[in-house]
Amino acid sequence: MTDTNEIAVVPKIADLTCLGLSKEENNLLIKAAMKKSLSTVEGMNSVMLTTLSPNVRKRVETLQEIQAVHDGLVSAYRVELAALEAKYDSLYAPLYTKRYEIINGISEVDGIVPEEADPPVKGIPEFWMNALCSNDMLSCEINDDDKEVLKYVKDIKCSKLEDANGFKLEFYFDTNPFFSNSVLSKLYFMTDDEDEHTLEKATGTVINWFPGKNILKAPNVREVERSDYEETSDDDDEDSFFQFFNPPEVPTDISELDDHKAANLQNIMERDLDIGFTIKEKIITKAILWFTGEAMDDDLYLDLGDSDTESSDGEEVENGHDEKAPAAGEV
Amino acid sequence: MTDTNEIAVVPKIADLTCLGLSKEENNLLIKAAMKKSLSTVEGMNSVMLTTLSPNVRKRVETLQEIQAVHDGLVSAYRVELAALEAKYDSLYAPLYTKRYEIINGISEVDGIVPEEADPPVKGIPEFWMNALCSNDMLSCEINDDDKEVLKYVKDIKCSKLEDANGFKLEFYFDTNPFFSNSVLSKLYFMTDDEDEHTLEKATGTVINWFPGKNILKAPNVREVERSDYEETSDDDDEDSFFQFFNPPEVPTDISELDDHKAANLQNIMERDLDIGFTIKEKIITKAILWFTGEAMDDDLYLDLGDSDTESSDGEEVENGHDEKAPAAGEV
Repeated sequence: MTDTNEIAVVPKIADLTCLGLSKEENNLLIKAAMKKSLSTVEGMNSVMLTTLSPNVRKRVETLQEIQAVHDGLVSAYRVELAALEAKYDSLYAPLYTKRYEIINGISEVDGIVPEEADPPVKGIPEFWMNALCSNDMLSCEINDDDKEVLKYVKDIKCSKLEDANGFKLEFYFDTNPFFSNSVLSKLYFMTDDEDEHTLEKATGTVINWFPGKNILKAPNVREVERSDYEETSDDDDEDSFFQFFNPPEVPTDISELDDHKAANLQNIMERDLDIGFTIKEKIITKAILWFTGEAMDDDLYLDLGDSDTESSDGEEVENGHDEKAPAAGEV
Repeated sequence: MTDTNEIAVVPKIADLTCLGLSKEENNLLIKAAMKKSLSTVEGMNSVMLTTLSPNVRKRVETLQEIQAVHDGLVSAYRVELAALEAKYDSLYAPLYTKRYEIINGISEVDGIVPEEADPPVKGIPEFWMNALCSNDMLSCEINDDDKEVLKYVKDIKCSKLEDANGFKLEFYFDTNPFFSNSVLSKLYFMTDDEDEHTLEKATGTVINWFPGKNILKAPNVREVERSDYEETSDDDDEDSFFQFFNPPEVPTDISELDDHKAANLQNIMERDLDIGFTIKEKIITKAILWFTGEAMDDDLYLDLGDSDTESSDGEEVENGHDEKAPAAGEV
């Protein structure tokens, strides 16, 4: 592909804009297509092309130009999608604030009656603990000790990472006898190569347990297990939800792991991402329905998983939670 | 929740619209919230609510109203998202048409030189077969016999189902010595309960093989195997890609299956959906990059799967390809 060919891409985009793009969208698109066009030139598999006859190669090159226009459109779509999501996030935000205020007794609802209890019950006690426990995936992670700690959750929030692709979950805690942190965060760093969204790593807040209050039993043994990526059983009642804030580190060179360890790391990371997405997309978005039990019906189906999972060894955990992202990453 | 409370939802929505909704969006939102509000009333878990003190119950009811507004916003988001997707689908369409014409020699590109071959090579021979085979997941499904048949593919298209949730893949074939069909279709029917997108069933075109030309070896044995949901090995060289058009039927009453059979059915359906999504979201969207081998780098990561997969027995295959849909369906 030559400079002439790259320039030839732009008029094609201009033609397309008559289909309904604004001037601003048009500019975005041209920029994106030009960038794509250049990267296509760099990435071109010249060996493949030299085996083709000159005429077929010309046709292939034209298809590559068309692909560049296509990819520019995909980029423009992503820009528009992000704007749409931001718009709705800003519409959801005041609802979540209102919910927070009611749950924690910061604002009161109409029609409250005099209570026998003294002091009167404030807000909705143990709201988040009950919401979390009514989800079956999460309840598998929550033992009785965890429940005592989770009673102090005031709010759970999700936000996009500011300087990276991914999202952050924040658990806001009331003053409690277990640890000094007021917020426990879990960050999911995702790759974004425009096609695949894969989990690169997850990090969590180090919990400052008060002396004798650490509910993570035998933490040293557990650390070793996790660092070796040994499988942990779901019904091991020693599992604590608070391990969620201590996800496994992914080695810089994944190829150093043997197949078994790589598979176990994968399982742990998949499960971890499952939990993160469940909190992000189910619990936070409809906490009251989990609290009342109304949301349980949504989950009556057994987890048959996503079309993205098939093989089991590997380097990165992929997620398919992007409607426009391709489905599977395979070797 | 009373009629009065339901009506009280509407002004809250009206307040929100000042954040940037058009009048049309506003109307959609009010409709959606009213509908949601009613369904919340019906679905309310009254047993749960009676265990709460009257004041806490009032707070819970207010959160349910807020949830109804939230769900109305989610519905409005989905309407906008569908419009955005439709807009871009219409922008992609002429590019796919142009690609089709070049691949099949219907339109010619600039700069074609006189050729030695007589007759001259038309379009890009074996384009789709090569594109499909350069994807590792698909190449596992494609045996040597399949390749001979796939050389006749003229185009692969994807469209939304018209009267159901889901999508349709269409393989357009040139006249060929193997079967009389000009199009082989595969339909994926997905549930849409607004939260989860799960695969309900998949159906495919019955292939009208010419006598002696059926490349599906020992089809009777294979049929029995599949109907029993026996596991099939990926490296079984008798596997044919064309089984893709003959997906397993899901029994009306899934509970009749024992765990082993249910798990195997799940595996087959997951794999089937994986393949469908790979064709839909990778092959069709960037066929030329697969043909040249440029797209292979995208797939260097081992398939660590999606966060949606964990357990293995079950009733429906879930997909997480909706960015706004919750992640996992679990028991």
